[in-house]
Amino acid sequence: MSNKKPLILVTNDDGVDAKGIYVLSQAIREFGEVVVVAPDSARSGQSSAITPNKAMKIEKVYQEDDFSIYKTNGTPVDCIKLAMNTLLDRKPDLIVSGVNHGSNSAVCVIYSGTMGAVMEGCINEIDSIGFSFCSEKHDTDFAGAENYIKLIVDNILKNGLEKGVCLNVNIPQTEELKGVKICRQAAGYWTKEYELKTDESGNEAYWLTGYFHNIEPDAEDTDEWALSRGFVSVVPCVIDITAYNQLKRLSYLEQSLKLSEAIVN
Amino acid sequence: MSNKKPLILVTNDDGVDAKGIYVLSQAIREFGEVVVVAPDSARSGQSSAITPNKAMKIEKVYQEDDFSIYKTNGTPVDCIKLAMNTLLDRKPDLIVSGVNHGSNSAVCVIYSGTMGAVMEGCINEIDSIGFSFCSEKHDTDFAGAENYIKLIVDNILKNGLEKGVCLNVNIPQTEELKGVKICRQAAGYWTKEYELKTDESGNEAYWLTGYFHNIEPDAEDTDEWALSRGFVSVVPCVIDITAYNQLKRLSYLEQSLKLSEAIVN
Repeated sequence: MSNKKPLILVTNDDGVDAKGIYVLSQAIREFGEVVVVAPDSARSGQSSAITPNKAMKIEKVYQEDDFSIYKTNGTPVDCIKLAMNTLLDRKPDLIVSGVNHGSNSAVCVIYSGTMGAVMEGCINEIDSIGFSFCSEKHDTDFAGAENYIKLIVDNILKNGLEKGVCLNVNIPQTEELKGVKICRQAAGYWTKEYELKTDESGNEAYWLTGYFHNIEPDAEDTDEWALSRGFVSVVPCVIDITAYNQLKRLSYLEQSLKLSEAIVN
Repeated sequence: MSNKKPLILVTNDDGVDAKGIYVLSQAIREFGEVVVVAPDSARSGQSSAITPNKAMKIEKVYQEDDFSIYKTNGTPVDCIKLAMNTLLDRKPDLIVSGVNHGSNSAVCVIYSGTMGAVMEGCINEIDSIGFSFCSEKHDTDFAGAENYIKLIVDNILKNGLEKGVCLNVNIPQTEELKGVKICRQAAGYWTKEYELKTDESGNEAYWLTGYFHNIEPDAEDTDEWALSRGFVSVVPCVIDITAYNQLKRLSYLEQSLKLSEAIVN
């Protein structure tokens, strides 16, 4: 065991100046050396996007004992890559991302830049956790979030996660948080996703909006259910997205294509 | 059964003018009405990124019988959303994405804009397939790809995919394709991901590059193994990324947080 303090890398997708990343980085300072590397402005909905073919920059904006802040011109995943490849002299013991201003529950995990950074950490075999708070307000009070962040971070630093698994934590905005539920991701999709607006010059364009349709509102094991009842939802997520239970079913494709060999070759 | 031809929506992440989307859309014309909705320029590495807070436009660039082409200023996922919300009068029977100029095998599926569009189709309960060719050249010849695309599309139109499952198809660049293998996603990560360059003004910046490290090169059930032996790899992928085998292991978090209730509330 090294006698060094744990190294914790922090990022988000709302940008380095967002209140959420301040709340998160302050909440975890007691657990180790904290390095914040975050986008210079908001990168919401960036998923696991990376930036090829563009000059990437990383700049220190704050430093004190065991706490430093850097900003980059990249996405959340770029932030993790830049931190690990150009900045840190050892592998982080933990990556945390957030606290996102807005929910990343259910299928929204797919679009989330907060969770993109977490999955990047997981790909690099680092325990990684995303925290999101179910209010999009810039000045939301993140009520109760801090204690849950501390408890989850403390537990994961002590017990670790299995390889290839990361956590998607969502915290509801409610008067009293009821505890934690380990959940699965609720199934659903978005509807009415655009608003057609006409600008001053008479040009029409579409603006992203929409409504999430939860197709299983009564399923008590889902994150959506937990959040709607005042629980903090914790969904363990994989980076190996293979649909293992389909491998056998689809093997007919190997066969049917062998039979068509005459066409293929 | 409707007597209408199947409606096939096509997109990519290399942009509407890429050779790959031309090859793909031509290959599948025999199977139905084809609508291409693709980004106006390259959007590589965009994963499932969406574009909030920006005016989205969609413009028709070509039309003939049962074949039309539109371009948008969005990401691959935006293209699917724009097509379904603002353009198509019925749900597509199939979404195909690609042919990507470059591999999207192993963990690269996470960063892939090609596969972001496919996962978007899957979220919307439409059978969806991504095709990638293992050469990044703009003028690559996609040798042999066309027949495999036809055979796979034909089979999936006939047999369908299970709900929540989509396909990641990679086609190696090789003299003779050996057939299809149904695979799992190989595990690995990228190393040495940036090159430090100095521009004419003496400013330093990082450019994304790197090497993929396959941590299981001998695993015969992976896509990397299949591709390196000249097989077309087909990985069925999930959009529900819950790590189901971790739900029980992590239930201690519910308990430990109940015990800490005094701290929390």
